[in-house]
Amino acid sequence: MKLASLNEGRDGKLIVVSHDLKTATLASGVAPTLQTALEDWTNTEPKLEKLAAHLEAGKVDSFAFDANSAASPLPRAYQWLDAGAYIHHMELARRARGADMPPNALTEPAMHQGASDDFRGPTADMELIDPEHGLDLEAEVCVVLDDVPVGVSEDQAAGHIKLLMLVNDLTLRNILPGELAKGVGFIQSKVANSYSPVAVTPAALGEHWKDGKLCLPIQCHLNETLMGNPDCGVDMTFNFPRLISHAAKTRNLRAGTILGSGTVSNRDHSKGSCCLAEKRMIETGEATTQFLSTGDTVQIEVLDPNGQSVFGAIRQRVVQV
Amino acid sequence: MKLASLNEGRDGKLIVVSHDLKTATLASGVAPTLQTALEDWTNTEPKLEKLAAHLEAGKVDSFAFDANSAASPLPRAYQWLDAGAYIHHMELARRARGADMPPNALTEPAMHQGASDDFRGPTADMELIDPEHGLDLEAEVCVVLDDVPVGVSEDQAAGHIKLLMLVNDLTLRNILPGELAKGVGFIQSKVANSYSPVAVTPAALGEHWKDGKLCLPIQCHLNETLMGNPDCGVDMTFNFPRLISHAAKTRNLRAGTILGSGTVSNRDHSKGSCCLAEKRMIETGEATTQFLSTGDTVQIEVLDPNGQSVFGAIRQRVVQV
Repeated sequence: MKLASLNEGRDGKLIVVSHDLKTATLASGVAPTLQTALEDWTNTEPKLEKLAAHLEAGKVDSFAFDANSAASPLPRAYQWLDAGAYIHHMELARRARGADMPPNALTEPAMHQGASDDFRGPTADMELIDPEHGLDLEAEVCVVLDDVPVGVSEDQAAGHIKLLMLVNDLTLRNILPGELAKGVGFIQSKVANSYSPVAVTPAALGEHWKDGKLCLPIQCHLNETLMGNPDCGVDMTFNFPRLISHAAKTRNLRAGTILGSGTVSNRDHSKGSCCLAEKRMIETGEATTQFLSTGDTVQIEVLDPNGQSVFGAIRQRVVQV
Repeated sequence: MKLASLNEGRDGKLIVVSHDLKTATLASGVAPTLQTALEDWTNTEPKLEKLAAHLEAGKVDSFAFDANSAASPLPRAYQWLDAGAYIHHMELARRARGADMPPNALTEPAMHQGASDDFRGPTADMELIDPEHGLDLEAEVCVVLDDVPVGVSEDQAAGHIKLLMLVNDLTLRNILPGELAKGVGFIQSKVANSYSPVAVTPAALGEHWKDGKLCLPIQCHLNETLMGNPDCGVDMTFNFPRLISHAAKTRNLRAGTILGSGTVSNRDHSKGSCCLAEKRMIETGEATTQFLSTGDTVQIEVLDPNGQSVFGAIRQRVVQV
């Protein structure tokens, strides 16, 4: 099943989208918003699945699905947690700034909490306030949870993953060092994220959802040129159930929490990069890659082996504001 | 005007509370929840103020206000940002662990984003999972905002402060060092916060709201013994408008954002401490103060010069779970 939100009001309007992303139908009869659906998932999921089956069978009124009229599936959320599950990316980042890896990097995930009050749509402009900020994309996979109790085990955590999405976690690279020096996280160096047009249930991913990982490549294009297509299932040191269990060690995670993987990164550098900072790190000699400029376009997408877009594309253009 | 939320559902049920905190009336006719009221504050505020005036005049149906049936005014929020506005506290904390102050500590506030999906009520138990975690209270003042645009100036920011509350920002002191070593914020070392029974408009604070600071002492009791009563208006290096402007430098802050001052702390040590970690830091010789244990009670309250409780008391007991 695939779900999306029409761009209406602060929380969007829930719709069910066909597997091929071509058509959609209103889900207002089940729940007005994705947030409210997640809060009562046991009851809403079977009804939404039934609606999805009817949509595939052409048994309900439908309309053409257009990512440009979609908000992010959750236009805002009560929690956005972002991990560093692809340790290789962190190794490169630390090496680039001459910092050691945290001593427990391989046993304890790094994770931060970021802004979730004001997400942007999958095709919304990326607003650049100051070109000196060093705007960068970060292509990630994320999961959406129902209510997760404190102390959840990894085995139990897997069952709380209700949906997956892609995210463009925007970062202001030149503000980052000053915030890292304070050591308590990111306020100014992370700006409004955008998510993929649709959120997809683990079941709808079939064999591509395995061991708590999305086992498909993620494609990042910058100005129509492929800059990276690492496999999300490769080199992920901590899978999603492990990340959830870490986040819930001392607290409940309430329905609608979004948890991200961190920038997808493979050790095989022929797979390219999912952020410009990493591309700069692996350049030989002085880095020549520049951060994003006005007019640049970014596209983030996952295709299945048949070339079918799984989540729809995040496709954003940089505008100066 | 004073507002509170009855403990019903995930977002509570909005009520208006009398100035003396003795009576209350349902505000359902204006807005079902405080969150929805904040999202349309220009329209809802005058209606709520009118209801408050009618309540004071005995012109509406009312009932006795009981903090035990209240949730936190916002039982969950889309954003909880916590600053370190009382630099003296940070100086003591850094000195205690042999760390230097960040080079920009006096010009740039330290701020982190914490869990906001699962707040507890003002008299809810503090749940201790493991006594070795080192549970500590932190008494703070916080502001609740309407929609704040990116790049807001300090002057403009003041107008976005719609309500003030107190908060007990619970911290697991013995988990903190491992998370600080990772340098990206707190996931496991901060647990569910509780807020004061009522949220109060700046106007209702009268002369005690001045220069973007609450100018009244905050009282912290541990097991009925006063452990601190520093003045919130003294030694606050960054006032609330400055903190808001910092948080909004590169992003909007959407309605319902809660922004905290960090642990209130005066340089005059005769005023005591608002967290046990600070009490330990200023003990001569080896620290003897222990963190919270099962059965301990904590009370956090602000009284006006007439002895009237302004926000009601946060009053919580530690239970082992």
